[in-house]
Amino acid sequence: MPYDKKLNQFQIAQTNKYNVFRCLVREGPINRAAIAKRLDISIPTVMVIVEDLFEKKVIRSVGKGEFGVGKQPEILAIEPDCFFYVGVDIGRGTLRIVVNNTTGSEVASMKEPTGDPFPEKEFISHVKKLMLRFVKKLKIGPERILGAGFAMPGLIEKGTGKVIVAPDFGWKDIPLQDWLQAGIPYPVLVKNSTQALAVNESSVFWTDEVHTTLCVNLGYGIGAAIITGEDLYEGTGGISGELGHCVVDREGPLCKCGNTGCLEAVSSGEAIARQAQTIIAHHARSKIAEFCGANAAGIDAKMVFDAAKAGDGPALKIINSAAENIGVGLSMAVNLLDPDRVLLCGGLMRNGPAFLDRIQASMEEHLAVKTGRLVLQAGTKDEYSTAKGASRVLMNTLWARRTLPI
Amino acid sequence: MPYDKKLNQFQIAQTNKYNVFRCLVREGPINRAAIAKRLDISIPTVMVIVEDLFEKKVIRSVGKGEFGVGKQPEILAIEPDCFFYVGVDIGRGTLRIVVNNTTGSEVASMKEPTGDPFPEKEFISHVKKLMLRFVKKLKIGPERILGAGFAMPGLIEKGTGKVIVAPDFGWKDIPLQDWLQAGIPYPVLVKNSTQALAVNESSVFWTDEVHTTLCVNLGYGIGAAIITGEDLYEGTGGISGELGHCVVDREGPLCKCGNTGCLEAVSSGEAIARQAQTIIAHHARSKIAEFCGANAAGIDAKMVFDAAKAGDGPALKIINSAAENIGVGLSMAVNLLDPDRVLLCGGLMRNGPAFLDRIQASMEEHLAVKTGRLVLQAGTKDEYSTAKGASRVLMNTLWARRTLPI
Repeated sequence: MPYDKKLNQFQIAQTNKYNVFRCLVREGPINRAAIAKRLDISIPTVMVIVEDLFEKKVIRSVGKGEFGVGKQPEILAIEPDCFFYVGVDIGRGTLRIVVNNTTGSEVASMKEPTGDPFPEKEFISHVKKLMLRFVKKLKIGPERILGAGFAMPGLIEKGTGKVIVAPDFGWKDIPLQDWLQAGIPYPVLVKNSTQALAVNESSVFWTDEVHTTLCVNLGYGIGAAIITGEDLYEGTGGISGELGHCVVDREGPLCKCGNTGCLEAVSSGEAIARQAQTIIAHHARSKIAEFCGANAAGIDAKMVFDAAKAGDGPALKIINSAAENIGVGLSMAVNLLDPDRVLLCGGLMRNGPAFLDRIQASMEEHLAVKTGRLVLQAGTKDEYSTAKGASRVLMNTLWARRTLPI
Repeated sequence: MPYDKKLNQFQIAQTNKYNVFRCLVREGPINRAAIAKRLDISIPTVMVIVEDLFEKKVIRSVGKGEFGVGKQPEILAIEPDCFFYVGVDIGRGTLRIVVNNTTGSEVASMKEPTGDPFPEKEFISHVKKLMLRFVKKLKIGPERILGAGFAMPGLIEKGTGKVIVAPDFGWKDIPLQDWLQAGIPYPVLVKNSTQALAVNESSVFWTDEVHTTLCVNLGYGIGAAIITGEDLYEGTGGISGELGHCVVDREGPLCKCGNTGCLEAVSSGEAIARQAQTIIAHHARSKIAEFCGANAAGIDAKMVFDAAKAGDGPALKIINSAAENIGVGLSMAVNLLDPDRVLLCGGLMRNGPAFLDRIQASMEEHLAVKTGRLVLQAGTKDEYSTAKGASRVLMNTLWARRTLPI
C-alpha cells in the first residue's frame, strides 16, 4: 500500500480549481457560497477560482438567487460549449463520430460507410480526415477540443493503444494510437470497442445502488467488459472480457481463435448466419430460403431472427440454441464476477424480447447461486453508444488527472 | 466520481501518525530525518509523532547511525510485539489458528481437529473458546490484539460476514460474524476461505510487476479469488470466484449446485475420489483397489494420485481428465480477467508437478490470446496460508482506515 501523498501548494490549488469546475458541471447552476460549502473550502478561495474561470470564459452568470431579503448571490453556470470531446467508433464497414460538449451533451454526430481496411495506414489516414473535416464543419477550433477517443474492435494494448490483433479487420500489430495522434492537434486515445460501449452503457443505467456491471456485446462477434463502480476493469494488458472465447460446447465447431466450441463460434451473428447457410445449402425447408432469395451466401443473422419470429422451425432451432449457449457463457461470467447488473447490447439485441428471455432462462438455470438481486436487461440500442463511450473514456482519463487544461 | 476530500487538521495529524508508523513497519530501522524525507513532511512533525509512539511503547531505539563525523542520528525501529492479529481458518474437520505481530511475522500457530459442525451455535462457541484459550496461553492481553479474521468455506455476505450457504458444513443463513463477535473483546471479521487464501498467497508472491493475480483453490471443492493490485476483488455481494461452478462439460455429472458438468463436479478432490470409487465398485483392475484395501468408500483423491504416479491406467485417466477440465476452466477465467499470474493452491497441488504441467497444457490450448506474459505456478503449499490470509484481511481492513488504534 503506498503512502498517502502529501500535496504541495500548487497541487492543492490545481485540485481546488478542478473541484470547483467539476462542482459547476455536476451541480450547477450554483452560487459561490454553495460551492464552498459543498467542497468544504473557504469562500475567498472559491471567489479567486471563479474569477479565473470567468476570465477564461469557462463559466457565466445566470442571474441572482431569490433567498429572503438583502443582497442576492450571483448564480454561476458552466459555459456548456467551452470545451468539446470527440468520440469515434471505428466499426466494421461504418465509421461513427460524436462530438460532446463540456457537460457531456451531444453536439453533433455522423456516420459514413468505410471501405476495405487496407492498406492499414491509408485507412487510418482516411478515418482521421473524416473526423477532422467533421469537426471543422462544426466550426470548433482545435484549441477548444480536449481530445478524441477512438473505439476499435480487437485486442488493444493498454497504455499504448496498439492493435495487437483485430480479426474483423485482418489487422495485426498496428500502432493505431500513434498513427492517429500524428496530425491530430489534441490528445488521442484508443480503446477496445466493447470496453468503450460498456463505459457508455453503464453510465446511462448508472445508479448509486449498482456496484458491478457486466456489459456484453452480442453482434457479429461476442465480447464483454466489466465496470466496477464507475471504473473499467481492464485486466493486466487491457485484453480482458473475452467472453466470446469461453468454451461452452466442447464438441462444438472450430472457432477463429483455433479452439473448438467457443461462445462466439456458436452464438455470434456470424455463427447464426453460418448455421443457416449450412442448412439452406442442404436444401432444408425453411423460410430463411425465401428471405435470402436462394442466395445462401447472402444470409445474415437478421434473416434468421425474422424467420424464427415467423415460426420457422429450423430458424427457431438456431436462435434458441444460440440463446442457450449465451446463457451458459453468462452464467460463468456471473459465477466468477458476481455483478449486480448484466447489460446485453449489440446488433443481436435488436430482434425483439424473446431472445433476451431465452438467454435469461438459460443463464439462471446454470448459475451457482441465485441471489435474486442480479438484473439482466437490454442496453440502450443506441447505434452511437460505442462512439459516445470512446469520448467518455477520454473524458474520464483527463478528469482522473485532477487538473484542468486551462 | 466523488470530489477529493479536503482533510481537516485532526485528520491530517491522524494520517501523518499512520504514515510514520507504516514507514517504520515497512522501512525501519530508520532515523527521524529519513522518515521526514520519505514522507515529505517536516522533521519537527516527525519528532512529535515519534515522541508519542515512544510513550506508547510502539517503537524503540536501536542505536546510533554511522554517517561521517559529528552527532549521529538515533535509529528507530518498530516494537514488533506491540500489537497482534489473529487469523483463524475454520476448515473442514480442522481448525487452524495463527497469531501475527505488528510487522506481520508469525508468533505462533496451532491446529486442532473439530467434530461435526452441529449444532452451529455450539460449534462456533467451541471455535471461539479454542482461539481465546490459545491467545491466553501466549500471554497476550486482549488490549494488544487489534482483531481476529476468520476464514470460512462457503458464500459469505459482504459487510455482514453472514454465511449464506456453506455446503461442506451443511450450514445456511448463519450470522457467523455476529456470533463470533459476541464474547470476543476485539474486532472480528469473516471472509470466504479462498479469498483469505488468495490474499496471503498473492502477498507472498507479490512484486511490483504483478498487476492481477487469480488464485485457485483446488481441494475437496474448487474456488477462486481475484486480487487486483493489492486489493481483493469481491464482486457485488462478496460471492465472486465461483470458478468451481463454471460448466466445463455439458454432458458431465450432476453437481451439488443442481447443474451438470460444473468444474467442481469433474475435477475436485471429491470428484476424483468419487470417480475412483465408481470404477473400483465395478471391479476394474487398478492399484487404487490395493491402496484402499478393497474399501471403496475409503478412497480419497490422494490414493488416486498415488496410483497414477505408480503408472496405474485407470488412475491416470481420472487425474488427466481432471487436469484437462481444470485447464478449460482456467482458460475461461483468464479470457475474462486477463491476469498476469495464476496461483494454484489447495490439497490437490500437493501431488507433484505432473498435475500442474497437465493443467498448464490444457489451459494454454484453450486460451483465446496467448500473450506470453501469463505465469501459471503452484502456490506456497503452506497449510496455514488460509489462516494467515484471514489475519492479513483483517490487518488490511484496519490499515485502510488510515488511523492507528492508539
